Amino acid sequence: MPTRTDRTILGIDPGFARLGFALVRGNGVRAKLLRSGTFTTPQQMPQGERYVRIARALKQLIHRTRPSGAAIERLFFQSNARTAMTVSEARGIILLTCAEARLPIIELSPNVVKRAVAGHGAADKRAVQKMVQLILQLPRPITDDDAADAVAIALAGLQAGSHST
Amino acid sequence: MPTRTDRTILGIDPGFARLGFALVRGNGVRAKLLRSGTFTTPQQMPQGERYVRIARALKQLIHRTRPSGAAIERLFFQSNARTAMTVSEARGIILLTCAEARLPIIELSPNVVKRAVAGHGAADKRAVQKMVQLILQLPRPITDDDAADAVAIALAGLQAGSHST
Repeated sequence: MPTRTDRTILGIDPGFARLGFALVRGNGVRAKLLRSGTFTTPQQMPQGERYVRIARALKQLIHRTRPSGAAIERLFFQSNARTAMTVSEARGIILLTCAEARLPIIELSPNVVKRAVAGHGAADKRAVQKMVQLILQLPRPITDDDAADAVAIALAGLQAGSHST
Repeated sequence: MPTRTDRTILGIDPGFARLGFALVRGNGVRAKLLRSGTFTTPQQMPQGERYVRIARALKQLIHRTRPSGAAIERLFFQSNARTAMTVSEARGIILLTCAEARLPIIELSPNVVKRAVAGHGAADKRAVQKMVQLILQLPRPITDDDAADAVAIALAGLQAGSHST
């Protein structure tokens, strides 16, 4: 039975070719994975249409699942400026869509996400996936990288508590 | 009397603290400034709310003025990665808003904009503003930097012809 302090957090791994998402319900102590997956848009689709599709899919997911907050990774400077700018454009669309749905957003640095899930900020992808599996008592690790990242972000958001931006 | 080839282009200088916009009507030979200005959001406003405001203002502007296309500057790698990421987030919101309004978007590099307006890609801000004033036969130069940039972008968009993205 869910306690009063249980919350559902939507974790988002931003991207517009692939956007990873996860819905995790629980409190600081225990957590349950409700759903995880990815939204993808084909490369040959016009850019504007890809943005519209991503925004629409995210809006529908929020509308159907009614999370109490969203968690998204803060982007740090990357050596590939082009990728950083594309991911930032996707982040803008995600932040707008959450704000329009009046969903409080918490932004977390990659280090905070790793520390929350694996105990230290230098944990590699494999260690994070293993810990995600353990925390959520999943029969097997989530092998899709974007979905797995979104689950880790959602778990970190659940631990951090969300605040409106 | 407008000819059949006259088009109205919405030029946008992306930003979310200040977004410059301009509506220019004409063809490759002559052009007229219909309107220019800026949308601003206060710094103390929550980030999500600023995004919602910018998207709403832009949507209303498109709805009221019915341009035939939008022109937006392509962002190049900047030394300040933080600024580049913030502007990219704003760009994402602008591209989404235009795509949702089914407004064809043309993206232009800063060099293409300068070349279209001032004749060469190395023109400084002052030279671009002076040429904008001459082309549009304005009584005085546009002194607001963001609005002036948007006018130059709209003029370049008018020259380049727009294509759907």
